[in-house]
Amino acid sequence: MENFAPPRGMRDFYPEDYRIREYIFNAWEYAAKIYGFEFWDAPVVESMELLERKAGEEISEQIYSFEDKSKRRLALRAELTPSLARMIINRQGGLSFPLKWASIGQCFRYERMTRGRKREHYQFNLDIIGEESTTAETEVIAATLTSLEKTGLSEKEIRVHIGSRKLLVELLSEFKLSEAQLTACYMALDKKGKVSDEEINKILKNENIPEEVINKLFRVISISSLEEAESYLPENSEALKELKEFFKFSESYGISKYLKFDISIVRGLGYYTGIVFEGKAVKSNLRTVFGGGRYNNLLSSLGGRELPCVGMGFGDVVIMELLSDCRKLPGQRHGIEYIIGYMNADCAEFAQKAAAKIRKSGKSCSVGLKPEKPKQFFKKADRNNAHNAIYIGPDELESGKITIKNMKKSEDTIKSFAELP
Amino acid sequence: MENFAPPRGMRDFYPEDYRIREYIFNAWEYAAKIYGFEFWDAPVVESMELLERKAGEEISEQIYSFEDKSKRRLALRAELTPSLARMIINRQGGLSFPLKWASIGQCFRYERMTRGRKREHYQFNLDIIGEESTTAETEVIAATLTSLEKTGLSEKEIRVHIGSRKLLVELLSEFKLSEAQLTACYMALDKKGKVSDEEINKILKNENIPEEVINKLFRVISISSLEEAESYLPENSEALKELKEFFKFSESYGISKYLKFDISIVRGLGYYTGIVFEGKAVKSNLRTVFGGGRYNNLLSSLGGRELPCVGMGFGDVVIMELLSDCRKLPGQRHGIEYIIGYMNADCAEFAQKAAAKIRKSGKSCSVGLKPEKPKQFFKKADRNNAHNAIYIGPDELESGKITIKNMKKSEDTIKSFAELP
Repeated sequence: MENFAPPRGMRDFYPEDYRIREYIFNAWEYAAKIYGFEFWDAPVVESMELLERKAGEEISEQIYSFEDKSKRRLALRAELTPSLARMIINRQGGLSFPLKWASIGQCFRYERMTRGRKREHYQFNLDIIGEESTTAETEVIAATLTSLEKTGLSEKEIRVHIGSRKLLVELLSEFKLSEAQLTACYMALDKKGKVSDEEINKILKNENIPEEVINKLFRVISISSLEEAESYLPENSEALKELKEFFKFSESYGISKYLKFDISIVRGLGYYTGIVFEGKAVKSNLRTVFGGGRYNNLLSSLGGRELPCVGMGFGDVVIMELLSDCRKLPGQRHGIEYIIGYMNADCAEFAQKAAAKIRKSGKSCSVGLKPEKPKQFFKKADRNNAHNAIYIGPDELESGKITIKNMKKSEDTIKSFAELP
Repeated sequence: MENFAPPRGMRDFYPEDYRIREYIFNAWEYAAKIYGFEFWDAPVVESMELLERKAGEEISEQIYSFEDKSKRRLALRAELTPSLARMIINRQGGLSFPLKWASIGQCFRYERMTRGRKREHYQFNLDIIGEESTTAETEVIAATLTSLEKTGLSEKEIRVHIGSRKLLVELLSEFKLSEAQLTACYMALDKKGKVSDEEINKILKNENIPEEVINKLFRVISISSLEEAESYLPENSEALKELKEFFKFSESYGISKYLKFDISIVRGLGYYTGIVFEGKAVKSNLRTVFGGGRYNNLLSSLGGRELPCVGMGFGDVVIMELLSDCRKLPGQRHGIEYIIGYMNADCAEFAQKAAAKIRKSGKSCSVGLKPEKPKQFFKKADRNNAHNAIYIGPDELESGKITIKNMKKSEDTIKSFAELP
C-alpha cells in the first residue's frame, strides 16, 4: 500500500482532533439533557428506498449507495431525519407523544470536493414529535442555543433568523400558483442575497410566473418586520398568529435577544410546513450554523400517521470552524491526574501497585511501561499535562515514602503508600 | 413504503436501548481514561484494499463493499485495527511512542443471520503501540477488566485465558512444519473443546502432518499449567520468559485473580505474534467476551515501520447479553431533575421562565409544551422518573409562591421564583 490517508473527503480523528470533537459532542449532549431530550440512534446504513422517499431525486445523486450480497439496495445515511421518521412510524402505536428526541450521528454525502467541503460530518439533531404548539419550535431553538452557549458563544456571534413557509403560502395564495411555480418562488427567496436580483428574475420567468407575481414577490422579499408583513396578510392569518405566539414564548425562554424575523428563510425545497429557522454566524459572512423548522407532513407522506414535528440539524464541521474563527476552541488536553515513572525493573512492581491503588479510587493514572530516567520522565509528565508526578527509585523502594510532585505549583508532598488516593 | 424495520441484522436504538448502550460506552470510556488511554476514531468507510490487506481473503467475503461515483472501491469497516494501522503509518514520523490509544466504533460484517448474530456492532478497542515489554499486555487487560468491573462484573463472572503464539511456535519448532501445516495446527488448537478429537485429527491429517507431530500436538493441547509447559520447552525459551514476566506484572496490577494459563488460546489465523488472550464468561457456556494479543508484524506488513503492538477488541452486543444474563443491566432511566407543568395558557410564561432559570443553573428540566391537568401532569412526572415536580396554576401565578414536590419522598417545599435553583 502506498496511500495511508483516509478515503477522500473523510476525516481521521487523531487524539488531538478527537478531543475537539468530544468537546463539541459534550456541549450538544449537555444541552439535550438539560432540556430533557432523550437520545436515539439508528444504523448509518439505511435502505435506499427510504432515503429516496424522503429526499427526492436531487439529493439521491449524492447518496453513497450499494447492494448487499442479497441484492438489497442500501445506502449510507445523508441525514438523520429519514431514520427518525422510520423509527417513529415503526412504533407509532406504542410511543407516548410528544417525544423530545436527540441524536448525534455520522452522515455521508458524495459531493464534489471544494474548500472546506467534506463527504462526511457528524450531525446533532433535536426533534419534537407530536406537538402542534409553537412551544416546540421555541424549545428546540432554546436547547440549540444552550449548546452553543456551552462552547462560549453568545448573541454576539449567533443570530437566529426566523421565517415561515406558511406565511409565504398565505402571501402568495391570491395568485393560484402551480406547485412548480410555488417551488420556483421558494428557490428565488432562498437565493436572495446570494445571487443578483436579475438572476432571481430569470428563475421566476422560466417558470412562466406572471410579471405581477414577480413584482409582489420582490416586495415580499423586502419585508423586514412582522409588523410590515401584517399589512400584506389576510385577517386571521394563521401564520402570523403562530409567529407572534412563537416570539412571545421566546421572551419567557430568554432567547429573544438571538432572534430576528427574516422573511427570506425558506430552507430549500424541503418538507417544511410552518416556522423555519437558520442560526447564522454574525461575523463569518453570515454562514448558516444550524437550521430547521416544522415538518407536519413528513411522517404521513412516508406512510405513517399524521404527527406534527419540529426538527433542527447542526453539523460538527461548521461549529468547529466557527469556534476556530472566534478563537473559542478548547486549549490543550485536560491532562491526566497522576503519572508514575520508575528507575529500573526492581521498582516496577512498586510503581504498578501505586498506579493500581490510585486507579481504584477513580483517579486517572498513567504508569510507565518500562524504566525511565528521571529527566526523561518529568519531561513526559510535562508534555502530557499531568497534574501530579511520582517517580519511584531505589530510595522510595527502601523508605516506602512517595514524593508526589504537583506539576503546576511545583510543590512536593511526601506520602506513604497507604496515604495514596 | 411498507417496511419500517432497520436494514436486516442492524439495530435501532430507541431511547431505552440507547440508555443501555450509553451505560456500556460510559464504562469503556471510564476505564480508558482512568488508565490514560487517548481516544481516536476513523471513518466507518475505508478503502477495500486496506481491509483486504489486513484481513485476508476469508474475511473479505464478509465485508460490505461498494464503489463510489469515481469507481473507488470502498467498504464498511469490519474491525478497527486496519484503520488504526493506517493512521499510525500515516504519521509514524511525528508520533511519540509508546502510544496508548482507545476507540469505540461501529463495525459491519455481512454474515448469515443466526440467533444473536448481528451485522453490525460497536467495538471497544484498546491498543498500545510501540512497546515491547509485557507491561503492555498487562495494562491492556487490566484496563479492560476495569471497564467490566465498572458494570458490576468481577472474577466470579469473567476469566481471562492466557496463551502465547510464540510458545506454540517454540513447542512445534523441532518438526520443521510448513506455513500451511503450522496454520492447520493453530486451527486444530483453536477448535479444541469445540469439536471432537477425531475431527481435529482429520484436519491435521488433511495437511499431511506426520503422526508423530499429531501425537505431540495432542500432548501440547493437554498442557494445563505454565510449569508443565516448561518441561517441553527449550532452555532460555523466550515465550516462557515473557509469560512469567506477564504473570508477575499482573500480580502488581492486582488482576491475577482473573487469569488462567490456557495453551489452546490461539485467536484464529490472525496476525498475532506473542501473548494472546480471551476474556470468557465463567457461566454462560464460556462465551468469549473480549480478546486480543500482541501483533508485532502488522504495521510493517502493511508498509509501515516495525512497531511492537498489543491490542484488545470487545463488542457491545456480547457484553449486553452477558450483563443481561447476570441481571446487571441498568434499571430505569436516571430521570430528569425538574419537571414543570401548567394549567392554562396564562400560566405558560411563568412556567417557561422557571424552566429557563433552572436550566441556567445546569440542572435538567422539562417544561410542558402545552397546558395539562394536574392529574395527567403528575402521572407523567412519575413515568419520567422526575426527581422534583412543579405545577403552575392561577394560585401560583398570583402568589408567586412555587410548590416543589420531591417525587421520591412525596414532600413539598415552597419557594419564591428567586429561590429556584
